[in-house]
Amino acid sequence: MTDYTPRPEHKFSFGLWTVGWPGNDPFGIATRPAMDAVHAVEKLAELGAWGVTFHDDDLVPFGADDRERDQRIQAFRKALDTTGLVAPMVTTNLFTHPVFKDGAFTANDRDVRRFALRKVLRNIDLAAELGATTYVLWGGREGAESPAAKDVRDALQRYAEALDLLCAYVDEKGYAIRFALEPKPNEPRGDILLPTIGHALAFINQLAHPEMVGVNPEVGHEQMAGLSMVHGVAQALWQGKLFHIDLNGQNGPRFDQDLRFGNGDVKTAFFLVDLLEHAGYDGPRHFDFKPARTEDEDGVWASAAACMRNYLIFAERARAFRADPEVAEAMSAARVGQLAVPTLLPGETLDDLRAEEFDAAAAGTRGMGYERLDQLALEHLFGVRRPR
Amino acid sequence: MTDYTPRPEHKFSFGLWTVGWPGNDPFGIATRPAMDAVHAVEKLAELGAWGVTFHDDDLVPFGADDRERDQRIQAFRKALDTTGLVAPMVTTNLFTHPVFKDGAFTANDRDVRRFALRKVLRNIDLAAELGATTYVLWGGREGAESPAAKDVRDALQRYAEALDLLCAYVDEKGYAIRFALEPKPNEPRGDILLPTIGHALAFINQLAHPEMVGVNPEVGHEQMAGLSMVHGVAQALWQGKLFHIDLNGQNGPRFDQDLRFGNGDVKTAFFLVDLLEHAGYDGPRHFDFKPARTEDEDGVWASAAACMRNYLIFAERARAFRADPEVAEAMSAARVGQLAVPTLLPGETLDDLRAEEFDAAAAGTRGMGYERLDQLALEHLFGVRRPR
Amino acid sequence: MTDYTPRPEHKFSFGLWTVGWPGNDPFGIATRPAMDAVHAVEKLAELGAWGVTFHDDDLVPFGADDRERDQRIQAFRKALDTTGLVAPMVTTNLFTHPVFKDGAFTANDRDVRRFALRKVLRNIDLAAELGATTYVLWGGREGAESPAAKDVRDALQRYAEALDLLCAYVDEKGYAIRFALEPKPNEPRGDILLPTIGHALAFINQLAHPEMVGVNPEVGHEQMAGLSMVHGVAQALWQGKLFHIDLNGQNGPRFDQDLRFGNGDVKTAFFLVDLLEHAGYDGPRHFDFKPARTEDEDGVWASAAACMRNYLIFAERARAFRADPEVAEAMSAARVGQLAVPTLLPGETLDDLRAEEFDAAAAGTRGMGYERLDQLALEHLFGVRRPR
Amino acid sequence: MTDYTPRPEHKFSFGLWTVGWPGNDPFGIATRPAMDAVHAVEKLAELGAWGVTFHDDDLVPFGADDRERDQRIQAFRKALDTTGLVAPMVTTNLFTHPVFKDGAFTANDRDVRRFALRKVLRNIDLAAELGATTYVLWGGREGAESPAAKDVRDALQRYAEALDLLCAYVDEKGYAIRFALEPKPNEPRGDILLPTIGHALAFINQLAHPEMVGVNPEVGHEQMAGLSMVHGVAQALWQGKLFHIDLNGQNGPRFDQDLRFGNGDVKTAFFLVDLLEHAGYDGPRHFDFKPARTEDEDGVWASAAACMRNYLIFAERARAFRADPEVAEAMSAARVGQLAVPTLLPGETLDDLRAEEFDAAAAGTRGMGYERLDQLALEHLFGVRRPR
Repeated sequence: MTDYTPRPEHKFSFGLWTVGWPGNDPFGIATRPAMDAVHAVEKLAELGAWGVTFHDDDLVPFGADDRERDQRIQAFRKALDTTGLVAPMVTTNLFTHPVFKDGAFTANDRDVRRFALRKVLRNIDLAAELGATTYVLWGGREGAESPAAKDVRDALQRYAEALDLLCAYVDEKGYAIRFALEPKPNEPRGDILLPTIGHALAFINQLAHPEMVGVNPEVGHEQMAGLSMVHGVAQALWQGKLFHIDLNGQNGPRFDQDLRFGNGDVKTAFFLVDLLEHAGYDGPRHFDFKPARTEDEDGVWASAAACMRNYLIFAERARAFRADPEVAEAMSAARVGQLAVPTLLPGETLDDLRAEEFDAAAAGTRGMGYERLDQLALEHLFGVRRPR
Repeated sequence: MTDYTPRPEHKFSFGLWTVGWPGNDPFGIATRPAMDAVHAVEKLAELGAWGVTFHDDDLVPFGADDRERDQRIQAFRKALDTTGLVAPMVTTNLFTHPVFKDGAFTANDRDVRRFALRKVLRNIDLAAELGATTYVLWGGREGAESPAAKDVRDALQRYAEALDLLCAYVDEKGYAIRFALEPKPNEPRGDILLPTIGHALAFINQLAHPEMVGVNPEVGHEQMAGLSMVHGVAQALWQGKLFHIDLNGQNGPRFDQDLRFGNGDVKTAFFLVDLLEHAGYDGPRHFDFKPARTEDEDGVWASAAACMRNYLIFAERARAFRADPEVAEAMSAARVGQLAVPTLLPGETLDDLRAEEFDAAAAGTRGMGYERLDQLALEHLFGVRRPR
Repeated sequence: MTDYTPRPEHKFSFGLWTVGWPGNDPFGIATRPAMDAVHAVEKLAELGAWGVTFHDDDLVPFGADDRERDQRIQAFRKALDTTGLVAPMVTTNLFTHPVFKDGAFTANDRDVRRFALRKVLRNIDLAAELGATTYVLWGGREGAESPAAKDVRDALQRYAEALDLLCAYVDEKGYAIRFALEPKPNEPRGDILLPTIGHALAFINQLAHPEMVGVNPEVGHEQMAGLSMVHGVAQALWQGKLFHIDLNGQNGPRFDQDLRFGNGDVKTAFFLVDLLEHAGYDGPRHFDFKPARTEDEDGVWASAAACMRNYLIFAERARAFRADPEVAEAMSAARVGQLAVPTLLPGETLDDLRAEEFDAAAAGTRGMGYERLDQLALEHLFGVRRPR
Repeated sequence: MTDYTPRPEHKFSFGLWTVGWPGNDPFGIATRPAMDAVHAVEKLAELGAWGVTFHDDDLVPFGADDRERDQRIQAFRKALDTTGLVAPMVTTNLFTHPVFKDGAFTANDRDVRRFALRKVLRNIDLAAELGATTYVLWGGREGAESPAAKDVRDALQRYAEALDLLCAYVDEKGYAIRFALEPKPNEPRGDILLPTIGHALAFINQLAHPEMVGVNPEVGHEQMAGLSMVHGVAQALWQGKLFHIDLNGQNGPRFDQDLRFGNGDVKTAFFLVDLLEHAGYDGPRHFDFKPARTEDEDGVWASAAACMRNYLIFAERARAFRADPEVAEAMSAARVGQLAVPTLLPGETLDDLRAEEFDAAAAGTRGMGYERLDQLALEHLFGVRRPR
C-alpha cells in the first residue's frame, strides 16, 4: 500500500493562524481557546510539516511591549530549533485592527498608510532574522464598498509606492526576501484591489522592482470569483511569478470558506497538484485553511493532517495518470503535444502561411478526444486504474 | 428639461452583430430574420450613433467567394459614406465555425492556428482600408473544459506568438491600428484563457510589442466573475491600456446576458460612466448587447436607443454629482483627496517615517463618511438632488 | 419637491443588532463601541422609524441573571413608551454562542436541541408581553459543511418537530403571534437548511400548523443564490405567506454584505418596492442591514436614514411608473394583462382547446415590447420622466 | 477488481437530446451531424443503458405531418422492442420554437398558452402508449427578463392552472403517469419561475392534485444557484417528491454546462449517489448531459459510458464508506444518529423540557468530529481505504 506520510522534503507549511483559528465568524464567537505558538509548532512538527508561517500579530499581540515581544519571539525560535521546523514565509496583519478599516497602503488617511509601512518594515526585519525568504502581502482591506469613496487609480499609485519602498528597503538591507502578493476578490471589503492572480501580475509590471515581486495565489480566493485555479497558477508559472501558494478548499462564489485542502472542488485540487508537480514548482506547499468551527483541538489536527495527506494522494495519482500508457495515447490523440510546437516555424514567414490551403470543413469534424482524456484523469483520481 | 439626444460627438458605436442578433440561444432558434448590414447602418445613423463595428463574418458570410465579398464590402462602404458613420473598430469571428471548437490561436491543432491567423490577417487589411484604428480580439474559444486537454503554459505561449506576429504585420504595413484584447471568464468554453481584465493586462506585458496592445473590457464579462467593472477599468486606465470598451448589462454570475446598457447592475453602470467621463476617456462608447429574444425589430431599435440614452442620463448625473458642493464637502470629509498625496513626500526617508509617533486607537475611531457619500451618489442617480 | 420624510405610517422598523453592529467581521475586530438599546430606540424614533426589533441576546446578554434581565427589559419598555416606537417582531439568537455551532433545532446533540427550544420559549413569552405579532426564526446554524455529518432528512424532521412544538405552545397560550422563517443559502454554515424562499415555503406545508408559519425573506439572502428577490417575494405573496420582510442590499453571490437598502442591486430594490406597494403588503418594512465598518456613529444614522429615504423614493417612482399613460399603453402592448385571464375559460373543455387552429409561425414573430417597458421603468427610477 | 459494467437493473437512462446534441451553442454552430433516434437507441443499449427518454420534437420534428410522425414513432418503437430498452419518461419541447419565446403555460399571450397545452396533451397520449410513467415538465421559457413584463403572481396562477388541467386529463384517461417539475434558476430566461427544488415543491402544494406531481431535480441546475444538490434532493425525498432525477455536472454559478455525470463537482456527485442508494431511491438514474462540443461521435459514446461508470464507482465507494467500521465509529462520535431521536420523547411535555438544567459552556466545547468524518468519505472516494 502506498505511503502517504508527510515528510520535511514535501515542504508542507502551515500558518499559525490556521491551526490556531479559534472559530469566531461573523455570526459567532470563538469555540476554541487561543493556541500557544510553541504548542502549534510542536504539533505541526509531529504531524510531519516542514514549515510554519505567521503574521506579526499571530506571534506578538498588537501593541505588546518590547519585553513581551522578545520573550515570545525567543520562545518561538527555540521551538523552531527544537523541532527543526523552518519559517519560510512571514506576513503582516494589516486588517484586524480598526485603524486599517479603510485599508493600509491604500487607506485614504495618509497617516494610516505611514503606520502600515512602519508595521511591515519592522516585521520584515524579523522575517529576515528568522531566515524567511518570502514575504506575503494580502491586502484584504485595500478596497472599497463604494466607487465614490476611493479613486482606484490613486489607490493603485499608492499601492505601487508602498511596494517600491519595501523593495528598496529589502534591497538596501541585502535581505534574501521576495514579496508575494495574495489576490482576493472580496471579503472583508466589498471589492478588493488586485482581485485575481491576473490583476496582481499586471500590477507587478508597473513596479520599480518587478523582479522582486510575485504572487501567492489561494485556491479559494480564485474560486470565489468562479475562476480556474489551475489556469491562474499556470499563467503565474508562465510569467515566472509563482513565488508561493496557499492551498485550501472552497465551494464556488460565496463567503471565504478556507476548507482543508482536498475538500471543496476535488477535481481542481487534483489538477492543481498535477500542475505543481509536473511544472517542477519547488516552493512551499502552504496550507491556508480554517479547521471547521464545529471542531475541538482533535479536529484541528485531524484536518491539518488531512491537508497533507490529500496532497500526497493527489501527487501519487497525478504521477500514475501521466505514467499510464493509455493516457499517453489519449493525449496524443488529443494533440496536446502539438500546442508546444510554434505556429510559425523558424524560417517561415506570414506570406508562407497566407498561401496555405486548408479544408476548414474537414478540420471541423475532427474529434478532440477530451471526454475520454478527462475521464481517464478522474479514474486515476478515484484510484480505479491504479496498478495493484 | 435636459436633452439626452445622442450625437456623433458622443462616439456611440454598435456592432452589426448586436442589433443584428436574430435571437438564437442554446435552447431556441432565431426569432428575428437576419438583418441586412446596410439597413443596420442606416438605422443606427438615424438613432444618432457615430460608429459601426463588425466581425468579418458579420459582413461577408464565412466561405463567400470574392465576388460576393466585394459586393458586400462595397455596399457597406457606401452606407458609411451616405450616413457619415465611421467604422472605428473591426474584429474577427474565431468562434462560430466548428473548426474553432478548440480555439483559434491556441487550438491544439497547429493547422487550425495557422488558419486562424490567415483569417485575421485578411480582415486586418480590410479594417485598415476602412480606417479602423482598433482591432479587437475576443478569444472566446481559447480555453478548455479539462485541465488534461491543454497545457495552459503552452497555450499562453502560442497566444503570445500570435499577437507578436499580428503586431509585426501591422507595424510592417504601417497600419494605424492597435489591438484590444477582450477578456471573458467562461462561456462558450468551460474556462477561457485571459478570463479578466487583470489576466489580459498581465499577458500584454509578456508580448514583443506591449505598446500596441491594450484591453477591451466588457461590463457583463467582468460581472460574470463577480468583479467590479469600475475597479477593473480603473486599473486598465492606470496602466494606460483602455483602448476600447464594451458597454452592456448583466445580473452577476450566470450565462452571458448582454443586456442593453443601463439594465442589470444599474449602480455600476452609473459609476462606470462617471469614471470614463471623469478620467477623460476619449475612445468609442461601444455597445455590445443583445436585444432580448422576445422582441421584434421595433424592440431592437428601442433597446439600441435606450443604450445611448442611459449613457447620457448617467453622464449628466455624474456631472451633477461632482458639481454638488455637498458632495465636495462629503468627499473632503472622507479624505478622498488625501489618496493622491504620496505616502512618502519628496525628501522624506523611511527613517523619518519609522521614527513617527501615531495613536492607532484614536485613528481607528475616525469615521470615513462613506455611507453618506455613497448615498449622495445614489440620490444623484435617482435625480432627487438635481437642480430644477 | 417631493417629501421623503419617514413617518410611523410607513411602518419602518430596524433591528437593535443593525444600528448596534459594532463592526466586527471575520478579519477584524469592532470599530464602534456597543450601542445602548435605549439610545438606539431614541435615535430611531427621532429618524422617523415606527418599530424596533431584537434578538433576546441583543437586549439581555446571554447568561445575564434575572435582575439584570428585568432592568434591561424595563428600560427598553420605558424607551418604547416614551418614543411611541413599537416592537412588532422579536427573534432568538441561536447562533452566536458555541453551543449552537452545529445548529439549534437540528443540532446532532439532542440536549442542544432542547436548550434551543427553552431559549425560544422564554423569549416568546417576552415577545408576547411586548405586543409583538411576528416571531422570526433564522436558522443560520441549521446546516452542515459535509453531507456525511448530518442526515438532512432527519434534520428536517427535527426542524418540523421544533416548529410544531412552538406553534402548539403559542396556540395554547393564546398569543397573537405568527412565525416567519428566514431563508439563507450559506454563511455561517457551508450549506444552510431551507436555503431559499422556496425551500421554506415547501417546508411549511409539512407542518402541523402551516397557517401559523410564513416567511421573512431577506433581499441579500436570495441574491447570494443569484435568485430574483422579486420573483421569490411574489411567490410568497401568491401563497399568502409573506409575514415579514428584511430589506437590505447585496452585490450577488459572495459573503453576506447587509448593505443599506437601496444600495447593491438598485433595480431589484425598485421593483421590490413596486411589488410590495402594488400588492398591498401591509406588514413591517424591516431593515436588516449593517452600517459599513468604516463608519462612526454618524455614519450609522446616515445609513439608517438612507434606508427609509430610498424606500420612499422607490415608492414614489413606482407610483409614477404605474400612473404613466405611456406605461399603461406599453403594458397593454406587452399583453401583461392577458396573463390574468384563465387559459381555459369557465365552460370550456380540453376538447375545445384541442380542436383549435393556431398559426405558430405567425405568433412567433409578434414582438413582446419588453425592452421598451423595462426602459420606461428605469427612466422612472432615474426620475427622467417625472412630472415637474 | 470491481466490475463497473452498467446493466439494465441499474436503471440508467439517457435523453435522445443528450447523446444527440449536435454541439450548437450561443457562439457556435453544430459540430456534429444530427443523430438518428434509432441509432441512438441501439448504441445506448449496447453500452448497457436501460431506458431512453425524449421531447416530442426529438422524435418527430416540429410541424411534421401525420405520416412522418407515424413512421418515426414506429421506427422508434421497433428499436425499443429490438433492444429491450424502455421509455420510462417523456417530456415536451416548449422552448425551441419562437412561439414560446415568452413562455408556454405562462406566456402573456393566451393563445400561446393554449397551444402549449395542446402540444403537451398530444405528447402525453404518446407517452402513455409507450408505457412511460413519468412526464417531465421543464419550464425553461417560463420566466422574465424584467419584473415589469410579467406579473409573477398571475404567472404562477396560470402555471397552476396548466398543471391542474393536465392532472385532470391524465386522471380521466386513467394513464399511469405522474408529473415531475424540473427547476432551473435562469438561462435561457433572465429569471425562470420555480428556480429551485424548493420553489417547485412549494408550488406543488398549491395544486389541485399535489399527489400527482413531484420534482425532477438536475445537479447542474441547483449548482447554478450555488445550492447543495444533496440537501435539495434530501428535502425532496423527505417530502416524498423525488419522482425522477437528472444527473450531470456543473462548475458553480455560470452558464448551464451539462457536463457528463461525475465531472464538475466530484464530491457532491459522490454524496448524491450515496444519498440515492442509502435512501433506497428506485426510480430512473437519468443522465441529462451534453457531450462536449469538441467531440466527434466516439467522444459522445465515451462520455455516455463514463456517466454510468462514474455512477457505479460512486455507488461502490459509498457502500464501502458506510460499511467501514471506522466510519461507523466516527459517525457515532459525531452523534449523527442522535438526530433521528425526537427532541421531545413521547410523554414528555414542554414543561419537562423547560425545567431542565444544562451547561451551555461545557456543551459548546464538545468537538463534533466532522473533519475526520468528511475526510474518511473523501478517502473512500479516492479508493485509498478500499479493502484490497
